Amino acid sequence: MSTQRLKVILNADSDYDIRVGVGVLDTFASRLRDETDAEKAVVITDSNVGPLYLERVREGLTQAGFEAFDLTVPAGEESKSIAVASELWEALALLGLGRDGLIVGLGGGVAGDLAGFVASTYMRGVDCVQVPTTLLAMVDSSIGGKTGVNLVAGKNLVGTFKQPIHVLADLETLRTLPTEEWDNGFAEIAKSALIDGPEFYQWLEGNAEALLAHDEEITQQAIVRALTFKARVVASDVTEKGQRECLNYGHTFAHALEAASGFRISHGRAVAEGMRFAARLAVEAVGAPAAFADAQDALLNRLGLQPITEAFSADELYGRMFSDKKVRKGALRFVLAQAPGQWESVAVDPDLVKIYLILWEQAKM
Amino acid sequence: MSTQRLKVILNADSDYDIRVGVGVLDTFASRLRDETDAEKAVVITDSNVGPLYLERVREGLTQAGFEAFDLTVPAGEESKSIAVASELWEALALLGLGRDGLIVGLGGGVAGDLAGFVASTYMRGVDCVQVPTTLLAMVDSSIGGKTGVNLVAGKNLVGTFKQPIHVLADLETLRTLPTEEWDNGFAEIAKSALIDGPEFYQWLEGNAEALLAHDEEITQQAIVRALTFKARVVASDVTEKGQRECLNYGHTFAHALEAASGFRISHGRAVAEGMRFAARLAVEAVGAPAAFADAQDALLNRLGLQPITEAFSADELYGRMFSDKKVRKGALRFVLAQAPGQWESVAVDPDLVKIYLILWEQAKM
Repeated sequence: MSTQRLKVILNADSDYDIRVGVGVLDTFASRLRDETDAEKAVVITDSNVGPLYLERVREGLTQAGFEAFDLTVPAGEESKSIAVASELWEALALLGLGRDGLIVGLGGGVAGDLAGFVASTYMRGVDCVQVPTTLLAMVDSSIGGKTGVNLVAGKNLVGTFKQPIHVLADLETLRTLPTEEWDNGFAEIAKSALIDGPEFYQWLEGNAEALLAHDEEITQQAIVRALTFKARVVASDVTEKGQRECLNYGHTFAHALEAASGFRISHGRAVAEGMRFAARLAVEAVGAPAAFADAQDALLNRLGLQPITEAFSADELYGRMFSDKKVRKGALRFVLAQAPGQWESVAVDPDLVKIYLILWEQAKM
Repeated sequence: MSTQRLKVILNADSDYDIRVGVGVLDTFASRLRDETDAEKAVVITDSNVGPLYLERVREGLTQAGFEAFDLTVPAGEESKSIAVASELWEALALLGLGRDGLIVGLGGGVAGDLAGFVASTYMRGVDCVQVPTTLLAMVDSSIGGKTGVNLVAGKNLVGTFKQPIHVLADLETLRTLPTEEWDNGFAEIAKSALIDGPEFYQWLEGNAEALLAHDEEITQQAIVRALTFKARVVASDVTEKGQRECLNYGHTFAHALEAASGFRISHGRAVAEGMRFAARLAVEAVGAPAAFADAQDALLNRLGLQPITEAFSADELYGRMFSDKKVRKGALRFVLAQAPGQWESVAVDPDLVKIYLILWEQAKM
C-alpha cells in the first residue's frame, strides 16, 4: 500500500499537496523544506493527540532543519475558544515566531481549526500545515480552508478562510481512533459520495462492510475519493459563495440536532440523521423519489450509522435552524438531492420544514 | 469643491470605491445599496467619534433602508485588544448579524483596525465599509486592507488582510481634529510623496504651508494624491510580500522610537524622525546624496514636523528594531531612498545601524 498524493489547485497562485499513507508523519517534514523558508515551526496539538504523535512530528521537523516548538491545548471542543486562541497568539510571539514561521496543526478538528485560525491571524497570516489524525478531519476539516473558534453565542462564529500549504493524513493515526470518531468520518464520506455522484456512491455501496471493519486499504481509498471530491468543490468556490453549499447536505438539520442534544449526539450521527431528513423533505420539496430515501437509509445503516432513537422537539429544532449562520434573509435554504450527484440548493417554505420536523419528532416518539 | 472618487482595483474580482469630499457622511449609505444585500448594518465607533458623527451615519443607513445598530468602544489604543474584539464578536451575534450583514468602521485607526479585524473574522468574513475620521486613517489605514489588534507581546501582532467594499473620507470630520492628529497625517503624506516620486513631492513642497493651515481644498488634493499612490501600491501587492514594503519607509525606526517612548511620541512625529534617520543611513548604506537628507528635513519642518529633541538609548532602539515583525532571518531590512521616487529595500549590516543609532542618540543629547 503506497502513499497517495493529491494536488489541490485553488487558482493560479495557490495550490497545495495532500498525502495520504502509512508513516507520512515521519517523512513529511523533509518534503516541506522545498515549500517554506521557515526556520521555526510550532506544532499546535491537544492533550489526547500530543502524547501519541507529537514526538514523531517534532523529530521529523528537527531532522529537516526546523527549530521545532509545540503548544498543547486541552483536548475537547472547549479549547476552540477566543481565550485559548489568545494564549496561543501570545505564546507564538514569546517563541519569536516571525512572519516566515510555520504552524503545524496536529490532531482532530479542534486542533486543526484552532491552528488554522491562529495561523491565519498571527502577524496577518503565517504558513500552516495540517496533520489531521481523525477520519473526519482527514476527509473534511483539514482541507477547504475553513477555520473557526466558538463564541458564547454559537459555534464557529469567528473564523477565516485559510488554505494550508500541505496536508498529511497518516493512516497509522487511525489505529487508535475511537468508534464515535469513525462514525463522524463515515457520515462525511457518505455525504461526499452522495453529492459527488454515482461512481463514488456505488464504490461506497460495494465497500461499506470493509470500511466499517477499518480495512486500511479501503479506508485510504475512501479518504482519497472524499478528498478528491472536496478539493474540486473547494477549488471552485474558495470563500463559500455558491457551489460549496453542497457540502452542507444534511448539515442544517444536523447542527440544530447537535445543539438541541447539548452536543451529546455526535456530529457524524447528526449528519447521517440530517441526510435522512433531507431525503424525506426532498420528496415534497423537489419531487425526489421515495426510493432514494430508502436506499440512502440502507447505506447509512451498513456504515453503522443507524437512525437516532431519541426524540427532540420540532419547535426547538425549527428555532435553532433559524439561528444557523447559513440562514439568509429569513429563508431556510436546504441542499436537497434526488439521486447521487443530483442536488440543488433551494429555499424551502418554512411551514413545510415545520411539518417535516413534526413528522420526524412523531416518528421518534 | 466637489467630491472626488477613486477606484481601487486589486484584481479582476475585487475593487472598491473611495470617495473624498465634504458631506459624504450623509450621502454614502444610499450608494451602498447597489453594493450589498445586507439588511442589517452595525457601526463600530469609539467614544470620541461616536458623539460627533454616529447619528448622521445611522440616519443615512436607516434612510437607505438598513436596519442600523452601533457598538461603541472606549477611545484609545487600549481598545485594539482581543478582549474588546471578543465583546464585539459576541455583540454582533446577539444583534443577529448574518453573513450578508454589513459592518461600518467609523473613526480613526483604532476603530478602523478593530472594525476591519472583526469584520474579517466574524462568520469567516462579512462586508466592511471604512469611514475614517482622521487624516492619518484617511490616507493610510483605511485602505490597504491591513487590520490588527494588539497583544501583550506587541502591537498589531494579530490581524488579517481585509479589503473594505467602500471607503468614505468626509473632510468635515477633520474640522474637529486635534493638532497631533494632523501631524500624524502630514507625516504619512510626506512619506507617500517621497516614495511616490517627483510629481507628488514637488506638489507637496509647493503646498506645505496651505496644508499646514488646513486649507480644505489642498487637504482634499493631498488625500487624493496619497490615496492614489497607496491604492496603486496595495493593488500591486495585496498581502505585503514585496512592492508594498516601500510603505514602511521611516517605520522601522519609528516603531522602535514609539515603543521606547512608551508611546508618548506620536506615530506621525516618530515616522518623520524615522524618515530623517533613514535618509542619513542611506548616505552610507546606498550612497544617497547628503543634500537629499537636508531637503527632506526642510520639507518635514515646513509641515510642522520638527525633529524630536529628546534622546533615547541607541541600545534600546536597536533591541526594539530586532523585535519588529519585519525582521527576517535576523537581518534588518530598511527602505532607503536617494531621491523622491527612488527607493530600495535593503538588508543593512546591523553594525552600521548601531553606529547610526549612536550618532542619532549623541545628536539629541
